[in-house]
Amino acid sequence: MRTALHADFERIFHPRRVAIIGVSAEGMGFGSGMFLSLRSMGFSGELIPVNPKGGTFAGHTIYKSVEDLPGDIDFAIIAVAAHAVPQALEACRKKGAVGAEILSSGFGELGTPEGKALEEEIRAVAGRGIRVVGPNCFGIYCPASGLTFLPGPDLSRLSGDIGFCAQSGGMSVDLAQMGMWMGLRFSKMISFGNGVDLRDTQFLEYFELDDQTQVIAMYVEGVQSGNGFFSTLKRVAARKPVIVLKGGLSRAGARAVMSHTASLGGDRAIWESVLRQSRAVQVHDLTELAQTALAFSLLPRRNYRGVTVIGGGGALGVAACDAAEASGMDLPHFTAQRYERILANLPKPGSSAGNPIDVANPFVHPSSLHEVLLAAGEDERVSLQLMVPLLYHYKSLALQLGAASVKEITPYHELARVAREAWDSTDKPVIVVLPNPKQGLDSMDIEEMLREARQAFLACGIPVFEDVRGAFQAVAHVSRYACGHP
Amino acid sequence: MRTALHADFERIFHPRRVAIIGVSAEGMGFGSGMFLSLRSMGFSGELIPVNPKGGTFAGHTIYKSVEDLPGDIDFAIIAVAAHAVPQALEACRKKGAVGAEILSSGFGELGTPEGKALEEEIRAVAGRGIRVVGPNCFGIYCPASGLTFLPGPDLSRLSGDIGFCAQSGGMSVDLAQMGMWMGLRFSKMISFGNGVDLRDTQFLEYFELDDQTQVIAMYVEGVQSGNGFFSTLKRVAARKPVIVLKGGLSRAGARAVMSHTASLGGDRAIWESVLRQSRAVQVHDLTELAQTALAFSLLPRRNYRGVTVIGGGGALGVAACDAAEASGMDLPHFTAQRYERILANLPKPGSSAGNPIDVANPFVHPSSLHEVLLAAGEDERVSLQLMVPLLYHYKSLALQLGAASVKEITPYHELARVAREAWDSTDKPVIVVLPNPKQGLDSMDIEEMLREARQAFLACGIPVFEDVRGAFQAVAHVSRYACGHP
Repeated sequence: MRTALHADFERIFHPRRVAIIGVSAEGMGFGSGMFLSLRSMGFSGELIPVNPKGGTFAGHTIYKSVEDLPGDIDFAIIAVAAHAVPQALEACRKKGAVGAEILSSGFGELGTPEGKALEEEIRAVAGRGIRVVGPNCFGIYCPASGLTFLPGPDLSRLSGDIGFCAQSGGMSVDLAQMGMWMGLRFSKMISFGNGVDLRDTQFLEYFELDDQTQVIAMYVEGVQSGNGFFSTLKRVAARKPVIVLKGGLSRAGARAVMSHTASLGGDRAIWESVLRQSRAVQVHDLTELAQTALAFSLLPRRNYRGVTVIGGGGALGVAACDAAEASGMDLPHFTAQRYERILANLPKPGSSAGNPIDVANPFVHPSSLHEVLLAAGEDERVSLQLMVPLLYHYKSLALQLGAASVKEITPYHELARVAREAWDSTDKPVIVVLPNPKQGLDSMDIEEMLREARQAFLACGIPVFEDVRGAFQAVAHVSRYACGHP
Repeated sequence: MRTALHADFERIFHPRRVAIIGVSAEGMGFGSGMFLSLRSMGFSGELIPVNPKGGTFAGHTIYKSVEDLPGDIDFAIIAVAAHAVPQALEACRKKGAVGAEILSSGFGELGTPEGKALEEEIRAVAGRGIRVVGPNCFGIYCPASGLTFLPGPDLSRLSGDIGFCAQSGGMSVDLAQMGMWMGLRFSKMISFGNGVDLRDTQFLEYFELDDQTQVIAMYVEGVQSGNGFFSTLKRVAARKPVIVLKGGLSRAGARAVMSHTASLGGDRAIWESVLRQSRAVQVHDLTELAQTALAFSLLPRRNYRGVTVIGGGGALGVAACDAAEASGMDLPHFTAQRYERILANLPKPGSSAGNPIDVANPFVHPSSLHEVLLAAGEDERVSLQLMVPLLYHYKSLALQLGAASVKEITPYHELARVAREAWDSTDKPVIVVLPNPKQGLDSMDIEEMLREARQAFLACGIPVFEDVRGAFQAVAHVSRYACGHP
């Protein structure tokens, strides 16, 4: 069932005509920066700069007022001094804008009566029929239309199935940027700052009905209406996974929340209990949020219990076992027959075909690893396989062979292909961790190779996690969701 | 009090004449690789290659047997087939070697009667008067003498105060390599593999008396004599901090330990209780071990309770508060007077001089941050300050300014200097985290700049941690040690 709010949101995320209030002919304020960022993102709609001083900017005439500009607008980006915001918003409403994002700061977050009064004025305008994102925010990033966050144009135009909203602009931008290399693809991201009108609850309602969004993630500092938020969260989380990072659960954190977005943080025990009851997926930092979203986005939603670990080095295998058990998974012991079949594909001596599988040598050929993945994946107790190739070792091989670069001799494309093939033929996901203990200035080539390797795996739909513990933690979130246990 | 064992160890770590048994004139086995690695490290002693086939290697005559070589030796590196090891070891003992490292594998870790019998033979030779590191190990890394681990020469010659021992060679090498960029400086590192003679207990005893070693770290899979190990650990931990990473506490992990180093893993509850009773510092993965060693190495051993966090972005501050509280620290609220003094040095609007301090803008001048560090550090409740400069933002500034590289405009040298100066004048440590959400292939320049920035901080004695949570966790380990609470 589509609601009126949903229709409004569609027009907000895909506006055809956008006024940018506060684009100066001189200097580089937020408005001018936003104008250039949208152009650089290739935003498909029309951009109309506005500033009382007039002039031109980047070849466009600057209108002196919203009233002056010809025809109606769909959306407005407001970046003027705080005291001028309510009037600008009202003008946009009269021009037919269905929504506006207010980038300006200087409102409730100051803790002053003036700041709060200005927020009340904004709320009053919003009540007359224009939806507001902000103030004190970085706005909307929508890869499909090309709307982007405040600070910059360098975000991806590739859409995906992850919807995200947060009070924090910094965290929103960090996640958008992490998404580009981690393989997170977003449907829409919203930084709503002080959230005087649209907040978590409304974005949850939108994501619930948005077919493009299949995984919802949010960073929450505080909510205004606890009951409304939690009843919505409970309803939405029953339909789509909702990953929640609640910041400010500590005493000092709650105080920091106050000065950041003027929200009431709330008690740790209450939050944790309510999140559990809502079947939301609670995570504890941005990295865990990102990795969990990646797992939900790329893995079938199943109960993963038995796993294999294929890596080099005994200690790595031991650590992987400990991490798996900590996340409620186990490494089934192979039968003698399967053990022999796996061992036949490994170098001797030094390798171990038990589970974890120690390949002993970092240069085992991808075709051998393919056989190992198939043999291990056919064990009916195995539901997922984690491969930990120690690709950084190829640097010393490159030096020995006199290769021009470590990239050219590291078979990450082949590894990605065999991982994908093994996943498809066994129907058991293969996930990857790419460790890098060499992070000195003389190992920039390893870093570059590993970044390319990550993209090669992602291009085959294979998620790459930061470390073994984080990988199993993210998989466990998917498992618990699939089983109905939050 | 120096023991006979201590004197033996000194000769083992600083040998003048070293025989390498298993250097082949053709091909590149472990022995030949080790010979080249030691030369490349600039090992100061004499290297004498041995192989029954004779010939020459890298300009050196290969002796056909240990008995043939002229004069006595101090130490031997043995890299021959497993069955030939006991005889080679006995020959070295007769040549006066005080110790040997056995790199060869094919012993107890195979789980075969033959493997175990060979270990018994080695133990018998050791009992006649030669100390053995290994077999199935990567040996000894001693920066002062230039002895190095098996796989390669690319380790640092800078000595420091951290002693490390582990059954795992892979973990030892990873930590040695991490040390080079994290700023960990080692006195001695030992990978002892199956540990048929020298094990954790003996290395603890050595580190206890070694003046160069002031922080002890170890990775333990299992111990042979629980009582001996724990009574030694308890005694040593009362004198020097002992950081212990126990691998294989899970069921599957214990099984993996068996196939890795043939050790008995032991029960989680027993281990955790005994480590607590021993006042050892228990850590849970290699990153935590490394960061904790860094904190012990660079921070005064005090009770850190009140801390400040100086960063950009409200969500980062909120996360920092949560992380501090989780590690038993808090962020004292500044008085109005101190608040104003700090605020005077921050850009407006958007900044917050509360604790956490939100500098609002990533380009705040180091001299302003210096004033902030001084003002905040003079609060008597503050014992340590964490600075989180978002240096990656300098990339967009570099683009705007048309700078040749992000490196040249990022003031990390100045930041390191003011951090050091503030530490010295307030006598409160300043520690650093350098986040990097931009890890795409187009951001290699940011990565390079951040690696240089890390070295600039380390050059001033400022530890740089991977993330805020890890930083506070490491500091908390130091605090608990200083207070006598493990």
